[in-house]
Amino acid sequence: MNLAGRDLVTIDDLSNEEIESVFTLADEMSDSIGGQFGVCQGKVMASLFFEPSTRTRLSFEAAMNRLGGRVISVVEMSNTSLAKGESIADMARVVGSYADIIVIRHLWEGAARVVADYSDVPVINAGDGGHEHPTQTLCDLYTLKKERKTLEGLKIALWGDLKYGRTVHSLAYALARFGATIHFRPSPGLEMPEHVTRKLATEYTGRLEKYDGPRALDEKGLFPLDAIYMTPSGPHQLANIPAVGLEIELEKGVDALYVTRVQKERLGPESRLSKKGYPVVDRKLLREKGFEETMVMHPLPRVDELAYEMDADPRSMYFKQAARGLPIRMALVSLILGAREAHILQTKKPIFARKVSYPAYTRDTGIRCPNRVCVSSQETESRYIRPEFLIVSTDPLILRCAYCEHEIRPRYIASSKWHQGTAENKRYYAAKGSMISRINPDNIIIFDSESAAQEQGFKPGRRLVETGAQEGEKP
Amino acid sequence: MNLAGRDLVTIDDLSNEEIESVFTLADEMSDSIGGQFGVCQGKVMASLFFEPSTRTRLSFEAAMNRLGGRVISVVEMSNTSLAKGESIADMARVVGSYADIIVIRHLWEGAARVVADYSDVPVINAGDGGHEHPTQTLCDLYTLKKERKTLEGLKIALWGDLKYGRTVHSLAYALARFGATIHFRPSPGLEMPEHVTRKLATEYTGRLEKYDGPRALDEKGLFPLDAIYMTPSGPHQLANIPAVGLEIELEKGVDALYVTRVQKERLGPESRLSKKGYPVVDRKLLREKGFEETMVMHPLPRVDELAYEMDADPRSMYFKQAARGLPIRMALVSLILGAREAHILQTKKPIFARKVSYPAYTRDTGIRCPNRVCVSSQETESRYIRPEFLIVSTDPLILRCAYCEHEIRPRYIASSKWHQGTAENKRYYAAKGSMISRINPDNIIIFDSESAAQEQGFKPGRRLVETGAQEGEKP
Amino acid sequence: MNLAGRDLVTIDDLSNEEIESVFTLADEMSDSIGGQFGVCQGKVMASLFFEPSTRTRLSFEAAMNRLGGRVISVVEMSNTSLAKGESIADMARVVGSYADIIVIRHLWEGAARVVADYSDVPVINAGDGGHEHPTQTLCDLYTLKKERKTLEGLKIALWGDLKYGRTVHSLAYALARFGATIHFRPSPGLEMPEHVTRKLATEYTGRLEKYDGPRALDEKGLFPLDAIYMTPSGPHQLANIPAVGLEIELEKGVDALYVTRVQKERLGPESRLSKKGYPVVDRKLLREKGFEETMVMHPLPRVDELAYEMDADPRSMYFKQAARGLPIRMALVSLILGAREAHILQTKKPIFARKVSYPAYTRDTGIRCPNRVCVSSQETESRYIRPEFLIVSTDPLILRCAYCEHEIRPRYIASSKWHQGTAENKRYYAAKGSMISRINPDNIIIFDSESAAQEQGFKPGRRLVETGAQEGEKP
Repeated sequence: MNLAGRDLVTIDDLSNEEIESVFTLADEMSDSIGGQFGVCQGKVMASLFFEPSTRTRLSFEAAMNRLGGRVISVVEMSNTSLAKGESIADMARVVGSYADIIVIRHLWEGAARVVADYSDVPVINAGDGGHEHPTQTLCDLYTLKKERKTLEGLKIALWGDLKYGRTVHSLAYALARFGATIHFRPSPGLEMPEHVTRKLATEYTGRLEKYDGPRALDEKGLFPLDAIYMTPSGPHQLANIPAVGLEIELEKGVDALYVTRVQKERLGPESRLSKKGYPVVDRKLLREKGFEETMVMHPLPRVDELAYEMDADPRSMYFKQAARGLPIRMALVSLILGAREAHILQTKKPIFARKVSYPAYTRDTGIRCPNRVCVSSQETESRYIRPEFLIVSTDPLILRCAYCEHEIRPRYIASSKWHQGTAENKRYYAAKGSMISRINPDNIIIFDSESAAQEQGFKPGRRLVETGAQEGEKP
Repeated sequence: MNLAGRDLVTIDDLSNEEIESVFTLADEMSDSIGGQFGVCQGKVMASLFFEPSTRTRLSFEAAMNRLGGRVISVVEMSNTSLAKGESIADMARVVGSYADIIVIRHLWEGAARVVADYSDVPVINAGDGGHEHPTQTLCDLYTLKKERKTLEGLKIALWGDLKYGRTVHSLAYALARFGATIHFRPSPGLEMPEHVTRKLATEYTGRLEKYDGPRALDEKGLFPLDAIYMTPSGPHQLANIPAVGLEIELEKGVDALYVTRVQKERLGPESRLSKKGYPVVDRKLLREKGFEETMVMHPLPRVDELAYEMDADPRSMYFKQAARGLPIRMALVSLILGAREAHILQTKKPIFARKVSYPAYTRDTGIRCPNRVCVSSQETESRYIRPEFLIVSTDPLILRCAYCEHEIRPRYIASSKWHQGTAENKRYYAAKGSMISRINPDNIIIFDSESAAQEQGFKPGRRLVETGAQEGEKP
Repeated sequence: MNLAGRDLVTIDDLSNEEIESVFTLADEMSDSIGGQFGVCQGKVMASLFFEPSTRTRLSFEAAMNRLGGRVISVVEMSNTSLAKGESIADMARVVGSYADIIVIRHLWEGAARVVADYSDVPVINAGDGGHEHPTQTLCDLYTLKKERKTLEGLKIALWGDLKYGRTVHSLAYALARFGATIHFRPSPGLEMPEHVTRKLATEYTGRLEKYDGPRALDEKGLFPLDAIYMTPSGPHQLANIPAVGLEIELEKGVDALYVTRVQKERLGPESRLSKKGYPVVDRKLLREKGFEETMVMHPLPRVDELAYEMDADPRSMYFKQAARGLPIRMALVSLILGAREAHILQTKKPIFARKVSYPAYTRDTGIRCPNRVCVSSQETESRYIRPEFLIVSTDPLILRCAYCEHEIRPRYIASSKWHQGTAENKRYYAAKGSMISRINPDNIIIFDSESAAQEQGFKPGRRLVETGAQEGEKP
């Protein structure tokens, strides 16, 4: 097990042990930043940032330079051939022939995966739209570890914009894998996306309980508690907590309050809602709400959600999180470039993740990812990418986009097996009926609408005809 | 003969042997990219890109870094003093006092020449508007040489936007010098500019035959064959080819189909015309049109003109062209910086170029380059640049702008000798009459209009008066 | 006395001896630019340019690279988290944890001070709006020293845009400290700001004489002479110069004519005025106006104010000024990074500056800096910065903004001592009355308007009531 040559597109590309090995090396390097010069001599990093960045880009570039390596940078799409209509796949292939490693930030969700797929060199995702930001998660976890001495069994409240905040998506997965309890406290309208909570509920061993906003908590002036994720091996079985128990649980406080900025640049119709009542985290709030011993974390940049008076407070971790980006990225880059070897301890620690293997759906039956910033939805990219989904549920039928992980619930199905030989047997059925259980996942054909099915030569199946309007398309 | 300290503004700044010597060093360096670190230690490259770029800028910067040199970059005009109205001459002088070599891309045609004229360090043209792009040509020729083992006597079809595609201008000159046959297959409205075809016809030893689009070829669905350039020492004398013979000649296929993108960012009124019927190069086209054994080349970025299915095809060379930009630019930069010496073989190979020396025209008689993106047409630059032309033909009278090479056909002439002493003798004549043959090129005075001539104190000459309206200015 | 770890925000952050020590090292380094590679190995410079730059940024980056150090760059605000609403204080803290030194240019006046206050590493101001540009002044002084062999007692004419030209502000302070005579020849409407002339008059030992534009000089076609600053230890006592004597003084010529560009990007209502009659400096002007032996200096970029024919003239210093930016910045950076030690000669040369210590005014009584580009006026920055002023005069009452140095003349005062205990004693008075002399500066409370005073619970003082409308607010 080695990190050399590996891509880091989502935080789940690294195992728990590998994450710990990055931290071990970061510890070593931060003790002697100046002594690392030359570790990556002769190596070239392509730093491709197509969205604004200060911390991430500068710490990656400083890291590479402090390792003695070199950096070639792109900081704006309009200065590149992407502005002439080039696809990111072409860019990835070309840049991969000049550099030894690519660091990419892009506004399209799934873009880093495409770059990794098409370039010959390892790729690090430095943020792909609202999807993931795995190296920020490494900085966050490293800070938690430094302050709490362990990553196991922590209790963390995620606060603010959980919908578009890519850092909290990557962080939630990582926390789940280390057996954490997570309190979701979104700003109204900016709740965790369904695909994130479903992933937490199905691919990790913990249990996710959603609430419709317990009023008692709301009255305290905090964001409503939207959901709790709790690892069953932990001391508190969520199932045992009645309504009153929950409040007790909450009053015990959390290890860290992870505050996030409203990602104004990504907001859609939630825009108006989210601005209202976004509470400022300050000393008063921490005192009143039982966060006296809670670390305050923030991936930065902050805008109005975190008071400047917190800066000198010993509980504030956000400048430490940012500063630790340097040793973390030095360690990560030198491991991926194979300039240093990972010391991966084979521990007997439990890993709170499940191996789940969903069937893929790759037939082109007109289904498109509904996410308008998904890389697969872009005109330049759809020249070579085919939409690709995982069937993460059949009852109800839910597809997850293989690029951006957004979900879609298609309404009609058929089987490739039934109609073999006879056109008359080409029939489609409602996805929510019982027919789906009779179809082998390898044979399933999925349509988003009746017209899509009919365009491909399918006729309504018997049940669909019988039940009529109920199953038919709504006008 | 040495490359140290030399400028590379047009591809003709390098002789055939010098081009081969760059390739020899590129071969050596690509065998050991990692071993070149330190070759340019302590040297600084200024990488000035005022038009979007991915491949060219990043490969130049990666090249300098892999040689152990350093790079200072500018990637957008608006971030520099050019935005405050500074001339590129001033910029060139100043940057030349900080860096050891300048690489410049600019949208103004002739800009690289100005930078080379005003800076004290060697300058490489990384693309000046629609004029030239000599280092792309080095990548193209290097790829042809690697694949065909020779640069002599190749047969190449240039395809697409031949008007604004700077890469095909530089490439056509280089191919001509190596004795190639070139098929010009422009997208309608985007034919090779007159100044390029005239240069090919007069400054190289081959013969250029233009067509008004042979219908038979058109029906095949290819771009009309607009012209053929053929080196006479080659086996096929163009003069011997009748109409039927031409078709046979064409059916023999070409070594490479050099596809180009429509340069949308430079299009003028041709904009509408060019989009229509731009055929996509895909496997089907290659199969049907007799290009089975043809290499497919493209300077990239591509947009819609080259199908993604070609990427895995062994005939596709475009990613190789791009990847070879690294060793080519490493070799070129180290030679120009004098960090490596060129091994220039004195071969007895023929050079298919003619020494042509055109008289210069530098008098300020109101003649301006008609090209609105010529560097000499810019307000900031006209403060110090005087328009300068070469008299490339006297019958008809044609001037070629010394900066961008665009042509102008002025309509009136006079002689500085005739009127010496007597104002009465200050007479101007029609450029297309016989008077021009009586004027020594050193003495010629040229006007674009009768009013320009009269403003400078000249009167209509006798013949102009006699012939009257015919010679006079059209309303 | 050492420069290691020091900030350079204004030119007065360096003593005369320290300036000379930078020049000594610059001399040494310019004799062997190539020999400096490695001096700053392993060090990282953050080069943060939020306004366009060619010379300053590229020479800083080239300097760091030629010292063997590394550079991480930001060249546009829109590509950073500042675009997401981050404060520069947050940015400074974070970047200071990645780099060893920060070079910052920003359009907000006082921004470099804020960055220096909040980052843990030394900061060099590379231009903060129209405020200061100390490293340009080092290039200017270095050029003067190289050409005149001394910095003492020079006579310099400052020409053009003295209002927004940050280079002339820093230069004027430095010249004054070295005992220079300065002729101020502003373009109409672009006179030196009051805060600069007041500082010259009060913090340096020379005497400043202002004129209302002597006509005789105006007729010569020069810019009107607006003011003269003359160091009393010099041979010419300004006090002794009657009107005729002044003209003789002026006709003796100056060592250098320091020409500046109109800073179009900063112009407000003066815009129309300034363009008119901005005379071009060319050979004719130098000949006719008695500048035959005068050096022509310019910080560049130039636009129209300096003729290209001057470029080859031996009196022209502007390209030398620019070129000397390289050794100057190499010396400065290596000294501040502690990679080289300053050899500071303890001379007995006089220093023409006064130690002045103004009382600070930091109470929040609603007074705001009137400068709309002051860093303290920005929404993002006012979250943590409190307005801060120096009381530079009490008769009349003048506050100087501690960030941008712009002046404000508040109209009402009170004392914190008088009203202790009794609300009835909370009275405010006119600032221009005699009451101010009775208030200890530590106790003074200042208001910009009567309404501001009343909002804070103060009532009009007796004298204010008696004098009534005269002292009251104008409608």
